[in-house]
Amino acid sequence: MRYTSFNPPVRTLMGSGPSDVHPRVLTAMARPTIGHLDPAFIAMMEEIKGLLQYAFQTSNALTIPLSAPGSAGMECCFVNLVEPGEEVIVCVNGVFGERMKDSIERSGGVPIVIADPMGSPVDPNKLEETLRKHRDARLVAFVHAETSTGVLSDAKQLAEIAHHHDCLTIVDTVTSLGGSPLKVDEWGLDAVFSGSQKCLSCTPGLAPITLNDRALDKIKQRKIRVQSWFLDLNLLMGYWGSGKRAYHHTAPINTLYALHEALAMLQEEGLEHSWARHQHMHRALRSGIEAMGLAFLVKESVRLPQLNAIMVPQGVDDAVLRSRLLNDYNLEIGAGLGSLAGKIVRIGLMGYGANMKNVMYCLEALEAVLADMRAPIQKGVAMNAAQNVAVLN
Amino acid sequence: MRYTSFNPPVRTLMGSGPSDVHPRVLTAMARPTIGHLDPAFIAMMEEIKGLLQYAFQTSNALTIPLSAPGSAGMECCFVNLVEPGEEVIVCVNGVFGERMKDSIERSGGVPIVIADPMGSPVDPNKLEETLRKHRDARLVAFVHAETSTGVLSDAKQLAEIAHHHDCLTIVDTVTSLGGSPLKVDEWGLDAVFSGSQKCLSCTPGLAPITLNDRALDKIKQRKIRVQSWFLDLNLLMGYWGSGKRAYHHTAPINTLYALHEALAMLQEEGLEHSWARHQHMHRALRSGIEAMGLAFLVKESVRLPQLNAIMVPQGVDDAVLRSRLLNDYNLEIGAGLGSLAGKIVRIGLMGYGANMKNVMYCLEALEAVLADMRAPIQKGVAMNAAQNVAVLN
Repeated sequence: MRYTSFNPPVRTLMGSGPSDVHPRVLTAMARPTIGHLDPAFIAMMEEIKGLLQYAFQTSNALTIPLSAPGSAGMECCFVNLVEPGEEVIVCVNGVFGERMKDSIERSGGVPIVIADPMGSPVDPNKLEETLRKHRDARLVAFVHAETSTGVLSDAKQLAEIAHHHDCLTIVDTVTSLGGSPLKVDEWGLDAVFSGSQKCLSCTPGLAPITLNDRALDKIKQRKIRVQSWFLDLNLLMGYWGSGKRAYHHTAPINTLYALHEALAMLQEEGLEHSWARHQHMHRALRSGIEAMGLAFLVKESVRLPQLNAIMVPQGVDDAVLRSRLLNDYNLEIGAGLGSLAGKIVRIGLMGYGANMKNVMYCLEALEAVLADMRAPIQKGVAMNAAQNVAVLN
Repeated sequence: MRYTSFNPPVRTLMGSGPSDVHPRVLTAMARPTIGHLDPAFIAMMEEIKGLLQYAFQTSNALTIPLSAPGSAGMECCFVNLVEPGEEVIVCVNGVFGERMKDSIERSGGVPIVIADPMGSPVDPNKLEETLRKHRDARLVAFVHAETSTGVLSDAKQLAEIAHHHDCLTIVDTVTSLGGSPLKVDEWGLDAVFSGSQKCLSCTPGLAPITLNDRALDKIKQRKIRVQSWFLDLNLLMGYWGSGKRAYHHTAPINTLYALHEALAMLQEEGLEHSWARHQHMHRALRSGIEAMGLAFLVKESVRLPQLNAIMVPQGVDDAVLRSRLLNDYNLEIGAGLGSLAGKIVRIGLMGYGANMKNVMYCLEALEAVLADMRAPIQKGVAMNAAQNVAVLN
């Protein structure tokens, strides 16, 4: 087989990420590659650290992007902080909480699960109760912004409870960073990971992380070596730390150009302004969604503006809906995950993608496709996914 | 601090990687981002699998790029194939063999080290002897092309010996893929990993891997779950396998555009032609190096054309040499690693960078800087790195 250059279709990305990437960020990616130990590159790494400290609202020295996706950022926190046999409290209210539980087990830890329904935030009372029962636990893990449901948990309150019981926190901020208020130092979050492809509007492939001194102390006191060479923070700090840089791995140079540009744009806009813009765009979307008679999964007070889980109306096949939006409108929205598969769709308003043009386009397209899909149902004609997809092809 | 867009200097990359990236590959990176489950993206993933099969000369179904650098490709092979307590034979003749040993230990394995000097290939006789002594071992790991020294080991022969003793092979081809003959199926290599940023001339950040059915069978028979969620091949195949794609992590979309383009260019050129071009450029470089009175670390018969380890002449500080080439000529060459630090420099001729313009430029620049550096020495003036760097600044 002979293959030629790949020219992707131009989509509007309003799923759960990747989000629309700004032309400035794409342009930055295409700049000439330089070496991972080049003084010019090292100067840029320092700028990225500073910009990430701003985005995370922290002064943690260990604030760096890992050379892998957000899920590797999660694994990095667990393999470094969890020691074999250690109990770890994990709050599960969606797919990404489940994933944390899995990662704790693989790191040799013993997960103590606090379960809340999908679409609800983590219940602080349950955390308090659980910590009273499990006095040996020194780690509490939770998701700040659950990407599978679009619910926000109160990271500040959860961290307070954890600290009161002498526990450190490991916090998933993949979907919140840049889109919702997140104040790592003020809230005392100890080990925090995120992704590049959501509200930072960078291309996927990098996992910003930040760890404070309490977290680093726990790592320094480990009795057993970190099980991953690639994610061992002791080694990574030799490359990303200040002073003489020791070669660890070859950094993804051009993707880091993109992250630098995306973070510089966030700084230009201002973090508070970005949070407000996400909220503003959510309100615009909400008006249209409610006017169409559609319902949100998550109640307004704990709903993420940047990830809108919308109930699929009775009689509508979500796969057909998404397929029509993609094929007829070049518009990507997200499917439900786990037990919500088929029951919700997820509309992302993330980073650069959180703009009025996207909101209005999405509402118009959604209304048109739903009207078209409901028409035959109202006429009593049976529809199924396969037939619809066939019509599209 | 306010940060502005980063505009890298335009370097000539003739170190140990990343290598010069072709403008077509940089352009591909900047194409619009689409979703990781977009049908158009999945079609491109299939093409990447086919193109990697060609580059590796294999028909292995599990032939994919991991969403992380080459060193994560190494770790992926070990965490999936090594079971805790298992003896693993590892051939160490350089820094990357050492790294394999480390990764075996972290995966819970017991490394049995076969040591050869840096600059020498792996000795097949030692492998044969060791396998006779360690009859329980089922895995043999070695580096095909040692990036720290530029020496080629006989992968075909080593694999034959390993198979004769009922062992599977784990092979580092980070520096050989695309640049030197590598025939995964014909040589019977079982689990093979590489990197995107060497002779493929793609940007860094991806680790092509290929595993045959024997290797997959060993993974299927594991008694203990793979310790990494991110690198668990059972999960990765749910995303990269054919059939319905299960979401695992968000793939680094734009970097995969770049890899697709780089591999399509390799296919256009033809693999054998690429191997011959690397050899041809090496011969051109060698003529100039020898004419300058400089010596190679590795003897000609086992020398990698794409990575030339050159002995630093007496009285020359390699840090000053490299710094002058970078600052005065925008030319990057590599330093020595491990025990060879300060003793060698490494000149890469990799992928797109293996061209006559680079060879001639490098020789001219090297000659000019060395002549300049030696002049004061000949006059009896003491020089040291700090002084020279100060002059540069």
